[in-house]
Amino acid sequence: MKKVGIVMGSDSDLPIIKKATDMLASLDIPFEVHVYSAHRTPEQAKDFAVNAYKNGFGVIIAAAGMAAHLAGAIAANTVLPVIGIPCKSSCFDGMDALLSTVQMPTGIPVATVAVNGGANAALLAAEIIAVGDEELYNKLLSKRKADGEAVLLKDAAISAELNK
Amino acid sequence: MKKVGIVMGSDSDLPIIKKATDMLASLDIPFEVHVYSAHRTPEQAKDFAVNAYKNGFGVIIAAAGMAAHLAGAIAANTVLPVIGIPCKSSCFDGMDALLSTVQMPTGIPVATVAVNGGANAALLAAEIIAVGDEELYNKLLSKRKADGEAVLLKDAAISAELNK
Amino acid sequence: MKKVGIVMGSDSDLPIIKKATDMLASLDIPFEVHVYSAHRTPEQAKDFAVNAYKNGFGVIIAAAGMAAHLAGAIAANTVLPVIGIPCKSSCFDGMDALLSTVQMPTGIPVATVAVNGGANAALLAAEIIAVGDEELYNKLLSKRKADGEAVLLKDAAISAELNK
Amino acid sequence: MKKVGIVMGSDSDLPIIKKATDMLASLDIPFEVHVYSAHRTPEQAKDFAVNAYKNGFGVIIAAAGMAAHLAGAIAANTVLPVIGIPCKSSCFDGMDALLSTVQMPTGIPVATVAVNGGANAALLAAEIIAVGDEELYNKLLSKRKADGEAVLLKDAAISAELNK
Amino acid sequence: MKKVGIVMGSDSDLPIIKKATDMLASLDIPFEVHVYSAHRTPEQAKDFAVNAYKNGFGVIIAAAGMAAHLAGAIAANTVLPVIGIPCKSSCFDGMDALLSTVQMPTGIPVATVAVNGGANAALLAAEIIAVGDEELYNKLLSKRKADGEAVLLKDAAISAELNK
Amino acid sequence: MKKVGIVMGSDSDLPIIKKATDMLASLDIPFEVHVYSAHRTPEQAKDFAVNAYKNGFGVIIAAAGMAAHLAGAIAANTVLPVIGIPCKSSCFDGMDALLSTVQMPTGIPVATVAVNGGANAALLAAEIIAVGDEELYNKLLSKRKADGEAVLLKDAAISAELNK
Amino acid sequence: MKKVGIVMGSDSDLPIIKKATDMLASLDIPFEVHVYSAHRTPEQAKDFAVNAYKNGFGVIIAAAGMAAHLAGAIAANTVLPVIGIPCKSSCFDGMDALLSTVQMPTGIPVATVAVNGGANAALLAAEIIAVGDEELYNKLLSKRKADGEAVLLKDAAISAELNK
Amino acid sequence: MKKVGIVMGSDSDLPIIKKATDMLASLDIPFEVHVYSAHRTPEQAKDFAVNAYKNGFGVIIAAAGMAAHLAGAIAANTVLPVIGIPCKSSCFDGMDALLSTVQMPTGIPVATVAVNGGANAALLAAEIIAVGDEELYNKLLSKRKADGEAVLLKDAAISAELNK
Repeated sequence: MKKVGIVMGSDSDLPIIKKATDMLASLDIPFEVHVYSAHRTPEQAKDFAVNAYKNGFGVIIAAAGMAAHLAGAIAANTVLPVIGIPCKSSCFDGMDALLSTVQMPTGIPVATVAVNGGANAALLAAEIIAVGDEELYNKLLSKRKADGEAVLLKDAAISAELNK
Repeated sequence: MKKVGIVMGSDSDLPIIKKATDMLASLDIPFEVHVYSAHRTPEQAKDFAVNAYKNGFGVIIAAAGMAAHLAGAIAANTVLPVIGIPCKSSCFDGMDALLSTVQMPTGIPVATVAVNGGANAALLAAEIIAVGDEELYNKLLSKRKADGEAVLLKDAAISAELNK
Repeated sequence: MKKVGIVMGSDSDLPIIKKATDMLASLDIPFEVHVYSAHRTPEQAKDFAVNAYKNGFGVIIAAAGMAAHLAGAIAANTVLPVIGIPCKSSCFDGMDALLSTVQMPTGIPVATVAVNGGANAALLAAEIIAVGDEELYNKLLSKRKADGEAVLLKDAAISAELNK
Repeated sequence: MKKVGIVMGSDSDLPIIKKATDMLASLDIPFEVHVYSAHRTPEQAKDFAVNAYKNGFGVIIAAAGMAAHLAGAIAANTVLPVIGIPCKSSCFDGMDALLSTVQMPTGIPVATVAVNGGANAALLAAEIIAVGDEELYNKLLSKRKADGEAVLLKDAAISAELNK
Repeated sequence: MKKVGIVMGSDSDLPIIKKATDMLASLDIPFEVHVYSAHRTPEQAKDFAVNAYKNGFGVIIAAAGMAAHLAGAIAANTVLPVIGIPCKSSCFDGMDALLSTVQMPTGIPVATVAVNGGANAALLAAEIIAVGDEELYNKLLSKRKADGEAVLLKDAAISAELNK
Repeated sequence: MKKVGIVMGSDSDLPIIKKATDMLASLDIPFEVHVYSAHRTPEQAKDFAVNAYKNGFGVIIAAAGMAAHLAGAIAANTVLPVIGIPCKSSCFDGMDALLSTVQMPTGIPVATVAVNGGANAALLAAEIIAVGDEELYNKLLSKRKADGEAVLLKDAAISAELNK
Repeated sequence: MKKVGIVMGSDSDLPIIKKATDMLASLDIPFEVHVYSAHRTPEQAKDFAVNAYKNGFGVIIAAAGMAAHLAGAIAANTVLPVIGIPCKSSCFDGMDALLSTVQMPTGIPVATVAVNGGANAALLAAEIIAVGDEELYNKLLSKRKADGEAVLLKDAAISAELNK
Repeated sequence: MKKVGIVMGSDSDLPIIKKATDMLASLDIPFEVHVYSAHRTPEQAKDFAVNAYKNGFGVIIAAAGMAAHLAGAIAANTVLPVIGIPCKSSCFDGMDALLSTVQMPTGIPVATVAVNGGANAALLAAEIIAVGDEELYNKLLSKRKADGEAVLLKDAAISAELNK
């Protein structure tokens, strides 16, 4: 199976990345995590992107805050699908990172998920790999069904409590 | 090759969708376009999503404006990757559609591109299909190279004009 | 008397819903609460809406955060009045939920109240039922009068303290 | 049948109000329109609200722009349901009017619709009156069905054009 | 000397009002404080405004949060200068209150100060009364000079510490 | 009578200033207009402010766009009441000017009116001068009454047209 | 004299760049203009930055819109001062470009000017070069004086017209 | 070596200024810190700016919050490069200060860094001085290299932990 590459711009984004790696691990999808900054280690970020395809990656997830250029800088150096996670920092609730990640110019898309959306970035990566992997596709269907059933259990509990 | 499904919430989004279909056609990727509203035809939107996998779709693009629920409503009914295009309407420059599309809850990701980003939605769909299709992958690499060369031609022209 | 249906997208919205149920209980209006997610349990959310009229509901309140599609998804499946409560989550102070709830397209209105406005959603539901129920209308008039008197008591206390 | 009261803060809001009156007329719902400003004619706005119930109104729609106080000022003087239409003016795309209309304090709800949402305000008023009027309820169901069919006709046309 | 009328929409705004009354007291300007809500006690708010001139008020300060209509509602009922303090509540950092207070329509100005700007509202009221009161004008000049000197003392301390 | 000083930061703000001078002229209030930039002519802006009191001014209106420092720079050099008009420029609909004008620090208030609110700035200046001028106060009362009657004439016209 | 390097992300930014080159030309400062995209020609953008110092550049100006990474990508590859011009595109009035340009992480500053601020970017570049060039410093002082005098001429004209 | 002047509008900005002075000290760049308010001590702020060149300053850093006029007020009185630090205060996450600092009119640029970006302001000042100081330029290159290596150490640690 193709691996998922995960790059964070700063180790302060680690809690968000953990949500992604936990999700991938639960789906038995191989991944590799790195700390590369678009600004402080631009060469390493570029090299990772340029070589990702031949190194067996199928999708890359990039997480960054503030002027979040990382996902775009990765996407500029590969045509693999790149998923961007805008991270909330001390100002603007992540709006700076969201706009810096999603408003990419024509030619270089970044698949942006919600602010701090580590788990969803991993799920999206899984969905992308599952396009060519029926077993994983079925795993995702099962997980979706289980998610729905968890909601219905909560509904049952709250209905029992409030609807007398 | 898996097809790309394209759904717009209103036919007023057609100019944005045309940028997507032009891009897909230029890459010889099969697609199918529909007008389904998450609110006015919720059944048809759901049915399209539920049956997309067995109908041969690999990715779905959904474009909508204002309280843009379409991409999320599609994503709620499939585990195929869903790409959301937030469309600009008469107020807020598409910020309402962007937030309605990207801020999805855990479990149901939508791969969001820039406001009105029809061409990039198609490119992202192509990148996703190319994960399992080396020929398409190479086509995307060539296109990327050509895009860069077009920039350099503009650089040459402007340099010649301004740098005397 | 017609019942008020209350749906929350996640049980994390329960404190806001409690403000609504407390208000309805204080006005002796029957209600029924459910946890249905527009994205994780779309079928149940739809079924609740489709059957609400014949199940004796007169109004539906829907509370959700982030890309808050729940009220709109309910409204797409009923012509009963639907009241949307945008819930504040970890980013954007509920602006994402507000825009996702209020900016509905023509044909499918959602009666939106303030962010986290659980009590007001219930009051609005009561006002709607009271259109055909003079006793409830008078109860609401009495409550309004009492609210004003509570303000005047505070005015008296603060005037006494500060205006010497 | 109860009448719908419609108040606009300025005659410059007339085009938005026309979308509301056209909708109400198409549903055979009686209405009465006024120009009352919360700031320039506060007495008349208040009197209209105070007497609305005994004058046969069931719902009031109020449209205003900028620091849009009109819906709130009406709601402060009646316990009938009040629907607010935030109107876009020369700045901020109606965000000032939206926040001024929707962020009401506990005790005085305003049912807010989308910026410039004249047609949806009327539809919401119709849904409210239909809570006690089965014939109108069925009319709304028919209209909803027709709206969906109009979308499907557009889908057929666009499918025929683009899906070859 | 004309009195300053101070009205708050809710007693939760009291800490902000205290900054205003402390400032006025330090300048020996008479004032009178009330809790009147534009929505819950519209009659009292109006009566206060209508009678303010003949009751010896020269300026009115109004503080409110969320859809902050209070200053506008007061201004609609008097031609005395009205100063609005937008108060920060649980969402939007007071942006809702700021826009609801400052974006008044032509004919009914509200002199808006910064969010939570209780002290500055009082100073502005003092400046307005001082237009016709040379003694107060000179007091304000002295206070301004003292404020500057306080800054210079801090400059001296910090310079001594950091500029070695 | 004290004069109203009016300063604009750029002659591009003249249309907004004209709304102010027309209003003052209609109320027979003397005024003096200048173009002084807080940034390009800081000395002149300061001198105007420092000498305003002894030159017979009672209030100063300052209009500026973008990083609108003019009102604050004037207020820093006088204790006369200063009214700020935030002007809309090519970006952000005047939000930059609004925040730059209204968010003044404690000690230096600026009485801020709506974006581009030239007429209201003049009315507020008139209200301030009228605190010590009963004739002007009565003129303002008459004007307010006339404004209300103009609304009622529009109400009569629109009622006649739409309420058949 | 050190040259000013000017890079635009797209030739659509040319009108803004022209304001910069006109300003530099009027100050006899040598410059060189290029079209390099951070995303479509990342190698060329990097090479320009890496070699800028040894190629005789003293400052670099970078202009880009949307997810404006160009200035940051340049700054990541040089320790010369980099000036960023956020460019307004079809959405958000340049707020996306402003946040993408200014919110740089610690270690990699970008000197950001106003949205579309081509002339000011050039002036700032001139001020930077003038730190070590007294002749240019004096030229800037003269230009500043002339700018002020131009304002005073406008003041004279408008005073003559309006202050009768 | 030219000195860096640092001005803060209020001593509450000291923690941000400390990040700047620590950075400058680590680079052996001389600096001088002052507390001058654009509004409370406009004369001292102006005098500092007017005399900065002849007092041996090469760059000035100004930090302020809310309606952050300080950097602009300094820039209006010197043609030395002025760096603005927008400071976050109790509302709007520093957006008010950012817009007040960056949106300067043509002729008076302010080099704006990120909200609370004290360290980057100092680095930018260092880069400006280094334009004419090869030793400092090389120090900055070394620091940049060290910053990159610190990231790679974190990458090594996190890779070792997560990539098993």
